[in-house]
Amino acid sequence: MDGLHLIGDWYECPEGTPELDSAGALRELCLSATAASGLTAVAERFHQFEPQGVTGTVLLGESHLAIHTWPESGYVSVDVFVCNRSAENSGKAQALFAALRASLKPVRVYEQAVRRGARDAIRRVA
Amino acid sequence: MDGLHLIGDWYECPEGTPELDSAGALRELCLSATAASGLTAVAERFHQFEPQGVTGTVLLGESHLAIHTWPESGYVSVDVFVCNRSAENSGKAQALFAALRASLKPVRVYEQAVRRGARDAIRRVA
Repeated sequence: MDGLHLIGDWYECPEGTPELDSAGALRELCLSATAASGLTAVAERFHQFEPQGVTGTVLLGESHLAIHTWPESGYVSVDVFVCNRSAENSGKAQALFAALRASLKPVRVYEQAVRRGARDAIRRVA
Repeated sequence: MDGLHLIGDWYECPEGTPELDSAGALRELCLSATAASGLTAVAERFHQFEPQGVTGTVLLGESHLAIHTWPESGYVSVDVFVCNRSAENSGKAQALFAALRASLKPVRVYEQAVRRGARDAIRRVA
């Protein structure tokens, strides 16, 4: 199962960005960016933390987007995982990731691209 | 933001395992394994694909669990991501991951542990 998993740890997102601390605003951003990327949302769930912070996911036909915000420290974690079983979705995943980053405007980032299910690394269990 | 992200690509999960192709059964497994691990579920969403397959997520107080199944090929992808901001949750994440693996019984696996937000790898944008 070939897949691409983009992982973002984004720092210094500007204080006051609505999507950092509103489940509704973050949900709207994630759904619109997903649609614009050409990926397919099949379900979603967003949760508002008190006193602050949002956690959410968009379940994709191609796998998932997951996002968590800590507005008090300007930190956001983002995961975009796409399976490339029936189509090559890596470009769409990169577009979604880039759109979220452009909206949340981190000043510093730590980003990783993880290859899922690489055939040569599979090991037998017991 | 220190965090641990466990990534599993699990192959040859036995055909007929109810959790592979029932959103209700997979949801039940994920919620009970989450509770047993000591992590905190704050919301969840599971989706049944037709003709087969399930995708789902449990949003955690500590970040998330995401899981996707392809029963027709015995493949399951699993993500357990925990933030260690206010507590060291790595052991709970490993317990949850191990419990899911024990239930889904893959014969072959590809597993990665990704450190999130490593301070020495953060780069400035533009």
